[in-house]
Amino acid sequence: MTKVAVFGAGSWGTTFAMVLAEAGSETTLWGRRQEVVDAINRDHANADYLPGVTLPAGLRATTDPAEALDGAEFVVLAVPSQTLRANLTAWRDLIPERAVLVSLMKGIEVGTTKRMSEVIREVVGVPEERVAVVSGPNLVPEIAARQPAATVVACTDLSVAERLQAICHLPPWFRPYTNPDVIGVELGGAVKNVIALAVGVSAGMGMGDNVSAMLITRGLAEISRLGAALGADAHTFAGLAGMGDLVATCTSPLSRNRTFGENLGRGMTLAEVVAVTKQTAEGVKSCESVLELARKHDVEMPITEVVVGVVHDGMSPSEAGMLLMSRSPKPERYGV
Amino acid sequence: MTKVAVFGAGSWGTTFAMVLAEAGSETTLWGRRQEVVDAINRDHANADYLPGVTLPAGLRATTDPAEALDGAEFVVLAVPSQTLRANLTAWRDLIPERAVLVSLMKGIEVGTTKRMSEVIREVVGVPEERVAVVSGPNLVPEIAARQPAATVVACTDLSVAERLQAICHLPPWFRPYTNPDVIGVELGGAVKNVIALAVGVSAGMGMGDNVSAMLITRGLAEISRLGAALGADAHTFAGLAGMGDLVATCTSPLSRNRTFGENLGRGMTLAEVVAVTKQTAEGVKSCESVLELARKHDVEMPITEVVVGVVHDGMSPSEAGMLLMSRSPKPERYGV
Repeated sequence: MTKVAVFGAGSWGTTFAMVLAEAGSETTLWGRRQEVVDAINRDHANADYLPGVTLPAGLRATTDPAEALDGAEFVVLAVPSQTLRANLTAWRDLIPERAVLVSLMKGIEVGTTKRMSEVIREVVGVPEERVAVVSGPNLVPEIAARQPAATVVACTDLSVAERLQAICHLPPWFRPYTNPDVIGVELGGAVKNVIALAVGVSAGMGMGDNVSAMLITRGLAEISRLGAALGADAHTFAGLAGMGDLVATCTSPLSRNRTFGENLGRGMTLAEVVAVTKQTAEGVKSCESVLELARKHDVEMPITEVVVGVVHDGMSPSEAGMLLMSRSPKPERYGV
Repeated sequence: MTKVAVFGAGSWGTTFAMVLAEAGSETTLWGRRQEVVDAINRDHANADYLPGVTLPAGLRATTDPAEALDGAEFVVLAVPSQTLRANLTAWRDLIPERAVLVSLMKGIEVGTTKRMSEVIREVVGVPEERVAVVSGPNLVPEIAARQPAATVVACTDLSVAERLQAICHLPPWFRPYTNPDVIGVELGGAVKNVIALAVGVSAGMGMGDNVSAMLITRGLAEISRLGAALGADAHTFAGLAGMGDLVATCTSPLSRNRTFGENLGRGMTLAEVVAVTKQTAEGVKSCESVLELARKHDVEMPITEVVVGVVHDGMSPSEAGMLLMSRSPKPERYGV
């Protein structure tokens, strides 16, 4: 039986731990809060994050990182992106020597513009073949409700990706595909939220499905150009972690980023939108990091630029739309 | 002033003629029915297909193909796919010698499994550099309402694609991108309806956005595999005529194919769905041609296969879902 540690008892960490446990791994979930851990062990429930969901009896939880990591062959990380560096620094000496580190996180580190797998390698000091990422169209409430979903497991060492695929494959419910392109899979997850803001703004202005489809597609084109500059494989962006996750995030009414954009598009000021938004819309913060990364690499990202303009620099949504539609005519494929 | 003839006064032909006329070409629209042609010339209206839309005063209509074709540098074809061969056979001797033929059609010819550009080349006897196609996320009512949209103009001769781009570029309303990949652009438009049927079935069964995103993405993967076998460029499918059109068609409530699938997914029989469906859902017919084409070229199209099974062979939607989710685990990219 494979031993797996999952760090982060939020909705995605808990749900992924559930998949692993049901697929047959001995899974231990680390949580920060004692009462959450106790409820998982005693009631098989994590009511704050997954109301109404019964967790598998075999899923153990703990607040002790050493207990979670003892003998773990895979260490799955699902903590908030901006806390990863500090958390990992505290845990690194406990991580078993040959364990594979798996990121479920979808952020870009503020300040360094590093992807989560880069932070992991830097902090733990592991080679790239020991770091994997999981990303795809994985709206958590649907997976927790045992609706079917597919995802991508990426590692530069395909044999490691296949081992990870094997432990999280739970037919007919959860279907992982392997991909060696860690950079592309991670970028897809990190940049989609910026594009979802743009789609939301356009929908809030009353634009239709052609405009949404155009923003999603040209949004993916600019993610792909950034990916090409960073060494990603363009094909990844046509896959589940690219267009799949982008489509789910941009078209789901549950997306916080889309909703944030819709409110801006309807004419609310940034302060008004922030006031009515309960949780952070990730893209509001990361659009600046993404643009910074793009500028470092001389990559054109016109949609990301107007999102930064609208969200941070007082550009009006209609001005943003005119800017995008008035660019010079182009071949469909350039910069990749 | 460029002279353009547009054949087919349906909603897309009329709307594209409007774009061309407003962008500055001398545009003549050929229609079959005298009363439609008269209304366009007299009232600047095509009430059956574009209710409430005022057409540009400069747009002329005629029922006489010779009048429309006289001096035309571009001949745009927007007749029903299965009538193209017969129509073109009647018109071919009137087509000016150096005119470029442009297809707006999105079908596969039943019986021959040929793409529309192949039918054009065969009937008119022109080389590939004189045939172009236009395809993208172009829901017609939105374009006619002057909402922004983008599209792809494809010709193996890029200088021809650029000439076509120039005459249909109408900033900030209509934005064409060039692409040399005619095969890929055409296949995207023809196969999307089959995938929209699958997305509809899944939505009708109560599945969520993860499943839709998965079907859209893996649907594009199988379109790409078919494209690779036919000589298309894989990048096209990540563009507006691939994922763009697919996303618009699969997520728009206006899509007839999606609606047809939803009714099947809710448990109606095929006969019941056909009875409540006013216009043909194109994918119902073309799924068999597409599968025939795939089998000729030894291409795996698992979603298309279950669509044919559900639509034509009495397979239940839940059986179709189990079949798709129980396939062996795979790398994300294969066959392309």
